[in-house]
Amino acid sequence: MTTSRPTPSVLKNDLYQFTMAYAYWRNGMHLKPAVFDFFFRQCPFEGEFAIFAGLADLLDFLENGFRFNDEKIEYLRSQPLKGADPEFFKWLKTVDSSPLRIYALAEGTLAFPRVPLIRAEGPIAIAQILETPLLEICNFASLMTTNARRFRMAAGMDKMLLEFGLRRAQDGTRASYYSWLGGFDGTSNVDAAKNLDILPKGTMAHSFVSSFSDHSDLNSSILRSCVDGKDRNFLEAVLKVRSELHFENTNPGELAAFIAYAQTFPSGFLALIDTYDTLNSGLPNFICVAVALNGFGYRPLGVRLDSGDLADLSKKCRQKLHEVDTEYGFYLLGGIKICASNEIDEKVLLSFEKQGHEIDVFGIGTHVVTCQNQPAFGGVYKLVEVDGKSCIKISQKRDKMSFPGRKDAHRLIGQDGKAILDLITKHIHPTSLKEKTILCCDPFDETDRIAVIPSEIIPLHTLIWDGGLTSPLPTPPEIKKRIDQEMTRLREDHLRTVNPTPYRVSLSLELYGHLQDILRRNMVVPLIK
Amino acid sequence: MTTSRPTPSVLKNDLYQFTMAYAYWRNGMHLKPAVFDFFFRQCPFEGEFAIFAGLADLLDFLENGFRFNDEKIEYLRSQPLKGADPEFFKWLKTVDSSPLRIYALAEGTLAFPRVPLIRAEGPIAIAQILETPLLEICNFASLMTTNARRFRMAAGMDKMLLEFGLRRAQDGTRASYYSWLGGFDGTSNVDAAKNLDILPKGTMAHSFVSSFSDHSDLNSSILRSCVDGKDRNFLEAVLKVRSELHFENTNPGELAAFIAYAQTFPSGFLALIDTYDTLNSGLPNFICVAVALNGFGYRPLGVRLDSGDLADLSKKCRQKLHEVDTEYGFYLLGGIKICASNEIDEKVLLSFEKQGHEIDVFGIGTHVVTCQNQPAFGGVYKLVEVDGKSCIKISQKRDKMSFPGRKDAHRLIGQDGKAILDLITKHIHPTSLKEKTILCCDPFDETDRIAVIPSEIIPLHTLIWDGGLTSPLPTPPEIKKRIDQEMTRLREDHLRTVNPTPYRVSLSLELYGHLQDILRRNMVVPLIK
Repeated sequence: MTTSRPTPSVLKNDLYQFTMAYAYWRNGMHLKPAVFDFFFRQCPFEGEFAIFAGLADLLDFLENGFRFNDEKIEYLRSQPLKGADPEFFKWLKTVDSSPLRIYALAEGTLAFPRVPLIRAEGPIAIAQILETPLLEICNFASLMTTNARRFRMAAGMDKMLLEFGLRRAQDGTRASYYSWLGGFDGTSNVDAAKNLDILPKGTMAHSFVSSFSDHSDLNSSILRSCVDGKDRNFLEAVLKVRSELHFENTNPGELAAFIAYAQTFPSGFLALIDTYDTLNSGLPNFICVAVALNGFGYRPLGVRLDSGDLADLSKKCRQKLHEVDTEYGFYLLGGIKICASNEIDEKVLLSFEKQGHEIDVFGIGTHVVTCQNQPAFGGVYKLVEVDGKSCIKISQKRDKMSFPGRKDAHRLIGQDGKAILDLITKHIHPTSLKEKTILCCDPFDETDRIAVIPSEIIPLHTLIWDGGLTSPLPTPPEIKKRIDQEMTRLREDHLRTVNPTPYRVSLSLELYGHLQDILRRNMVVPLIK
Repeated sequence: MTTSRPTPSVLKNDLYQFTMAYAYWRNGMHLKPAVFDFFFRQCPFEGEFAIFAGLADLLDFLENGFRFNDEKIEYLRSQPLKGADPEFFKWLKTVDSSPLRIYALAEGTLAFPRVPLIRAEGPIAIAQILETPLLEICNFASLMTTNARRFRMAAGMDKMLLEFGLRRAQDGTRASYYSWLGGFDGTSNVDAAKNLDILPKGTMAHSFVSSFSDHSDLNSSILRSCVDGKDRNFLEAVLKVRSELHFENTNPGELAAFIAYAQTFPSGFLALIDTYDTLNSGLPNFICVAVALNGFGYRPLGVRLDSGDLADLSKKCRQKLHEVDTEYGFYLLGGIKICASNEIDEKVLLSFEKQGHEIDVFGIGTHVVTCQNQPAFGGVYKLVEVDGKSCIKISQKRDKMSFPGRKDAHRLIGQDGKAILDLITKHIHPTSLKEKTILCCDPFDETDRIAVIPSEIIPLHTLIWDGGLTSPLPTPPEIKKRIDQEMTRLREDHLRTVNPTPYRVSLSLELYGHLQDILRRNMVVPLIK
């Protein structure tokens, strides 16, 4: 199962993949074996980790999207590649993902700068066409999942996190799915929840509250009691509590709306209390209905705050709920969940923690679904080998350089079970690293090297696609669980919000030498006269 | 025609639309006539205008997406609304967009804070269900279109703007479409270009360049001359130019890649020149191939810079191209287009203008497609009237308040043809405003009023959906053109990047009074003892 968005077409692609494919073909090199790396250069959100996601969507594309039917061929032939050799299109018609081999991190694995998340191997023209779909699929998926995990870390593991962002999302379908994967408990997005087989969340908006003027808008005063199964006058019960608690000075339409909602969902009563005035109207109105509901044998669920100083309001609400419990002499409203929403981002969550609050459930929209702090993941897909020869892109900026050749990556684990560093090596036999002191070289600084005797070496890449799926994919709940486990591998200082310690990514000595060699072979030394 | 993304399902929706629909139904009020406004409170990107977009997509949803089949009903019945009255689902099964009336700005119209972009009317439960789909569709569309227009303004009207962002996009399909609508000339996204019936753009990536080692990788030296139709040795011609110009000290793989590309696309030769070293390798290699191509009767197109100091490099490239023209004594390379890409945003474009540059074409990715400066548009959808009675949401913050009642909006035009302000009134007969002095009241400040005798009054809302489309929709090129025209309506000072003058949005005196009235009727005055 994937995100439920439709499989993208192979033409959801940059044109240059097809112009290059044609140029490769025209030069008779389109079937040369090539290796491409998908990696990123910098972790998102000023952090020092990312979580790799999107693999299931990518495999869905390889299985169901990567082919050219007559209509697609005809479009390319008649429009952007007009005039190209007809034989090319005959070949293109045969192209699909069957000659590709995809090595990848397991979905949900921690990922770090320059460690390939995916290594794609296959005929150069075909692996080239994969570039844009792969990036389009994995970049946002990894960004979103990482973002959601950061929200989870900021909120604490014991709070409930709900994603409410569909209305502001650029891609709500993927946003809901990957938010959940990264650590959210639920979503208001019905379609996404259906796909995930979880219950979507939500109760009422301001429109519902403001559509009532007063209790003459109620078409019934009755609610069936859960205690004895008899229909009783609920409105009267509410008004009685209202009078006992001297809560008459509230907005009457709001009270009517809460009564109507409680009659509809007596076991699911959660009220939005900020339509007119949170503390002077919404909360007292809620309390009247909640106490009356209790008398009918139903347990009210909670309140939602959607404006104002959320942390402060949550404390004042909690205090008032306690006071009412004290007044009635029983524990009823102490169990009420306080939900808060409205422009909550990672920083706001952290500041809530500092100032103290009584919020049990966070509803988070815009900031999680758009990844407002950094709305794009900088993953790139670079050619590193063709026909057995290493390739490199040298840039004006050294850190934009790619590492040449077909490579493996390994996570070295220390005695405490935590990850020490990721080591990139030339492609090697999987056992050849074991039980040795390993010299780990910084890619850019010859003086920065460390020797490691790891307790465990985890090979990071698995062959997941070899013309077809090599093994069944994990389910979304399995991936979600994997992320929780992965996070325990990382030292606290890498996870800090402010100035986290960079996680070390090293090259083996052999790869370091190879990099220098390829660099020297391809660089241009300007001749000054 | 719309963006080409599939019509969203009605379940791509927030759950609370369905819980509220059920509560309205249960309270017998689901068919009460209601009016909802779609508006925003603040213009995006720290600007003072927005462009309304998404209407065609919305109408597509109304026509093709807004209905409940058995599977959808069964999901709601068995999962989130488990236990609800079966009669409700019988009713829900009959629900579609036929009882709705949609009044809207024409797509591509300038929009301002608090002026409804859309007014949706219909039975409250049905108009309620429309909320999330409408916001999901129109928020991002309006954001993207506005963002693209800002890039267009920053680049100047005479430059070519291409959108290259699919790989970093959250929703590449919509991003490409609305970028084009807002002012971009083209896109690399094949699928989006196909949908728009424009030619997608693109040539080569670094992978193509780095896949060649030297000219032994070429499978042919030949190119058919455009002058006499004869096959000639193109490689030799290139090497001759190289020797004449003393350009031997360049990367040989890059030169081979350029030759192969020119052999494939002799009339479309545009080379990416920064794979190894822009000025010392890429540009000289380009020049060799370009001069040789010219000898074969083909006109080379241009170079692309994708790293480094783009403005500075563009000037140095232009200078070198001129020098070669001078050396050969004919004008050939002067017409070369210089394209630049790499993390270009609105500010970078403005700084290019200031420092001077020789860039003809901008390739813009991440920043335009994700709207990095502000990735969400804050459009909201608020109930303003039910059963003929005005509703209001009062917030702790005054500027989050909605304006009550069924309203119209008008753009008042001055003698210079520029817009003076937008006036919101109670719903009135369209001609009743004409030829009067109109008192225009600030919604929040009683002391801020102006009287206007407009030269022209443009009613902003049209009934576009009345259970079905009321008239044929404009085509995308017509909408694009409309945006160009709309922009001429706005005074320069509203369009400034830094501290633009806010555009005035006023209420009629009658509406101002009505707002105060409804506010007083619904606000809660806390009683302090």
